[in-house]
Amino acid sequence: MADMRSLEDLFHETLQDMYYVENKLVKTLPEMAEKATSPELKTAIEEHLAETETHVDRLEEVFAEIEQEPEAKRCDALEGLIKEAQEVMGDIDDEKTLDAAIIASAQTVEHYEIARYGTLACWARELGHEEAESLLQEILDQEKAADEKLTELAEQSINQQAAA
Amino acid sequence: MADMRSLEDLFHETLQDMYYVENKLVKTLPEMAEKATSPELKTAIEEHLAETETHVDRLEEVFAEIEQEPEAKRCDALEGLIKEAQEVMGDIDDEKTLDAAIIASAQTVEHYEIARYGTLACWARELGHEEAESLLQEILDQEKAADEKLTELAEQSINQQAAA
Repeated sequence: MADMRSLEDLFHETLQDMYYVENKLVKTLPEMAEKATSPELKTAIEEHLAETETHVDRLEEVFAEIEQEPEAKRCDALEGLIKEAQEVMGDIDDEKTLDAAIIASAQTVEHYEIARYGTLACWARELGHEEAESLLQEILDQEKAADEKLTELAEQSINQQAAA
Repeated sequence: MADMRSLEDLFHETLQDMYYVENKLVKTLPEMAEKATSPELKTAIEEHLAETETHVDRLEEVFAEIEQEPEAKRCDALEGLIKEAQEVMGDIDDEKTLDAAIIASAQTVEHYEIARYGTLACWARELGHEEAESLLQEILDQEKAADEKLTELAEQSINQQAAA
C-alpha cells in the first residue's frame, strides 16, 4: 500500500475496506441464517442479506462518484469479528443459546459497519462528494435499522427463550 | 474452552472477552493519544483512558456479582480492530490525516464495546442479575457518550483540518 497523504486517500482506502466487508457478508450471512433455529431470526438475517447485496451496488456507485474502480481491500477487523463469531458458535450445543450468540455476533458486525459508514459519510461531506455522502448515509440508515431490529428480536423473544 | 450450554455460560464468556478488551485498551489508548497531534483529540483519548480504567474495576464487580473470578479471554475481534488501526496509522505521513484516522479507528472500538455491553446488559436482565445489569448499563452509557464526543470532535475540527 502506497503511503496515504490526504483525507481523500484515507476515504478511498476505507471505501475499499467496506467493499471487502459487504462482499464477505454476502457469503457469511447465509451460513449464519442456516445455523439459526428461530424462524424470526432466520428471516431477519435473510432480509439483511438482501440489503447487503444492494450495499455492494451502492458502494460501486460511490467508487464511480470518485472516479475509481471498485476494489476490495482485506479488512482485518471484519476477519476478527467473524473468527470470534465462529469460535463462539462452535462452542455451543444448545439451540436457544446459539440463537442468542448469533444475534450478539451479528450486532458486533452491524456496529462495525455503523462506525465505518458514519465516518465515511462525514468524510464525503467534508471532501465535497455530495452524491457519495447521500449514498453512504442511506447505507448507514439501513445498518442502524438492522441493528435495532436485532435488538428488538433479542429482547422480545430470543433472550427469553435462551434464559428459560 | 468447555462447551457452553446455557445463556449463563455465554454471559460469563462474553464478560471474560470484555475484561480482556478493557485491560488491553488501558495499554493501547496511551499509544493512540501519543500519535494524535490535535490537543483536543489527545485530551479526549486521555479522558477515555481514565474511564476505561474504571471499567476494569466495574467488570470485576460484575464477576463478583455472578460469583466468578475475574479472568480475561483473548478477544480476536479487538485484536483485528487494533491490527487494522495500526496498519492504517502506519501508512499515513500527514498529521492532520492521521488525526482523522485515529478518531475513525477509536470509533470502531467504541462501537464494538457498545454492541457488547448492550448485549451483556440485556442478558444480565434476562438472567436476573440486577446489580450486574446496572453496572453494565453504566459502562454502556459511558461508551456511547465517548463515541458521541469523538463524532463531535471529528465534525467540528479534525475532519475540516484534514480536508483543508
